[in-house]
Amino acid sequence: MKDSNHFGIAGYYSEMAAKEDMIGIAMTNAAAMGVPTFAREAAFGTNPIAFAAPALNGKLFSLDMATTTVTRGKVEVYQREGKKLPPGWAVGTDGLVTTDPVKLLDDMLHQRGGGILPLGGEGELHSGYKGYGLGILVDILCAVASGGTFGRAVKDLEITAARVCHFFMAIRLDIFRPAGDFKKDMDSMLKDLNSLTPAEGADRVYYAGQKEHEMEAESEIKGVPLEEGVWKMLNSLADQLGIGVKA
Amino acid sequence: MKDSNHFGIAGYYSEMAAKEDMIGIAMTNAAAMGVPTFAREAAFGTNPIAFAAPALNGKLFSLDMATTTVTRGKVEVYQREGKKLPPGWAVGTDGLVTTDPVKLLDDMLHQRGGGILPLGGEGELHSGYKGYGLGILVDILCAVASGGTFGRAVKDLEITAARVCHFFMAIRLDIFRPAGDFKKDMDSMLKDLNSLTPAEGADRVYYAGQKEHEMEAESEIKGVPLEEGVWKMLNSLADQLGIGVKA
Repeated sequence: MKDSNHFGIAGYYSEMAAKEDMIGIAMTNAAAMGVPTFAREAAFGTNPIAFAAPALNGKLFSLDMATTTVTRGKVEVYQREGKKLPPGWAVGTDGLVTTDPVKLLDDMLHQRGGGILPLGGEGELHSGYKGYGLGILVDILCAVASGGTFGRAVKDLEITAARVCHFFMAIRLDIFRPAGDFKKDMDSMLKDLNSLTPAEGADRVYYAGQKEHEMEAESEIKGVPLEEGVWKMLNSLADQLGIGVKA
Repeated sequence: MKDSNHFGIAGYYSEMAAKEDMIGIAMTNAAAMGVPTFAREAAFGTNPIAFAAPALNGKLFSLDMATTTVTRGKVEVYQREGKKLPPGWAVGTDGLVTTDPVKLLDDMLHQRGGGILPLGGEGELHSGYKGYGLGILVDILCAVASGGTFGRAVKDLEITAARVCHFFMAIRLDIFRPAGDFKKDMDSMLKDLNSLTPAEGADRVYYAGQKEHEMEAESEIKGVPLEEGVWKMLNSLADQLGIGVKA
C-alpha cells in the first residue's frame, strides 16, 4: 500500500490476523531518521516489523519492533530529562556516536545529518548491519513492492504530505497443519519461555507482547492510566468542543 | 520442513528465488544457544533470517543474519586469540554479561547455563528483546508451523541426531508490479545507499550482501582464498582418499 499516512500501531493489524487463526505480519516505512552502518546521514525510517501468531485461549505471541535501536520519542525523553544518551543509540553529523540528545534532535530537524542507529548499534561490533538490513527489508516490502516512496525521499509527516507505504500479510495456519495443533505447540513454546529461570536481579522472563497484553487486561478493569499532560490536553480539547470529559 | 539437518548457508536459498524474479526468504532454527532477555539459560538458536530481492543486472539485496548478536564461531575466535569478549555479546550462568569466552564455551558445552545474547544485547537498554523476538519468530515459522522441534529441545547437532526445521518462501514480484519496474526501483534504492557519505574514518556504505558478492566475483577470477588450516585439512583428506589436490 502506497501514498498512505501514519497507520497507528503496527501490531494492531498483525494481531487482527492472529485472532482469526492466521499468522499476521504488518510493516510500514517511515520518515528517514535511521543511519545505515558506516554512513553519516539517515536513509531509512524506524520501519517497524509486527508479527503475531496465536496460542491457546486467546494468548498471542506479538512482536512489534522498530528496526532502529530506539525511536525518536525515546531520544526526546532523554532530552526532556536532561540526560546523556547511551552510546550506541545515535550518531552525529560526522557519523560517529553521539550522546547529546539536544544537538542530535536539532541536527535531525534541520537535516544536517546524523540520526538514530539501526538495531545492533554502531559499526559491526554488535552487528548493527543486521538492524540496517531489516530496515531496508521493510522498505523493500512496503515501498519497492508498491511503487511508493522509499529511503531518504520519505520525509517527516509534519514537513510534507504523508507518503508512507505499508505491507500486510496474513498466512492461514491450516496451510501448515490443523490450527488447533499449531496453537497447542505455540502454547507450549510460550509456557516454556515463561518458565525460564530469570537472570540475577530480574523477576520474570516474558515473550513478545506479553507485558503489553497484561497491561491491557489490567486497563480493562482499572481504566487506562494517562499522563498529567495528556489528561490536560483532553480536557482543553473537550472544552473547545463544548463536550464534557468524565473524570 | 522438519526433522532436517544443517542446511548450509541460509542466503543460498533466498538468492535462488531472487535470481528468478521473486523475493526469497529462508530461515532455520538451530541448537539452543541464545539467551532470552532477562533469562539465564539458552532457549533459541542463532536462528538466521535470509531475505533476498533482485535489482537490475543480477544485482541483489541479500540479507543473511543470525538473530543472536554473534554466532558461537565468533566467540571461539576470541577464545583462540586469548581476547575478552565485548560486553553485550554473552551472559554467564547468572544471566549477567560475561566477557570470558573460555568459561562461556565450557558452560555452554556442559549445559550449565549462559549463552549468547540476542541482537540488541543485554536487557532492554539497546532493545535486546527485539533480537529475542526475531529468534522466536524464526522458531515459530520453522518449527511450530511444521510440527517440529523448537526452543530448548533443539540440541547441538554433535550431541544428538539433527532435528532442525526450516522455512522457505518465494514471492513472485509480479503479484505486486511488473518485475522490471520492481527491479528498477530496487536498483535506485541500492545506488542511493551506496551514494551516502561515509562516516568519519569509514570508506564506503554497503547494502546487505554487497561485500560478499564483490568477494565472490573476485574469487571467480583469482580463486578462493583458504586459511592455512583448511588447506592442510583438504590435503590430508585428499591423501586419505588417494586423490590429488591441485595447488
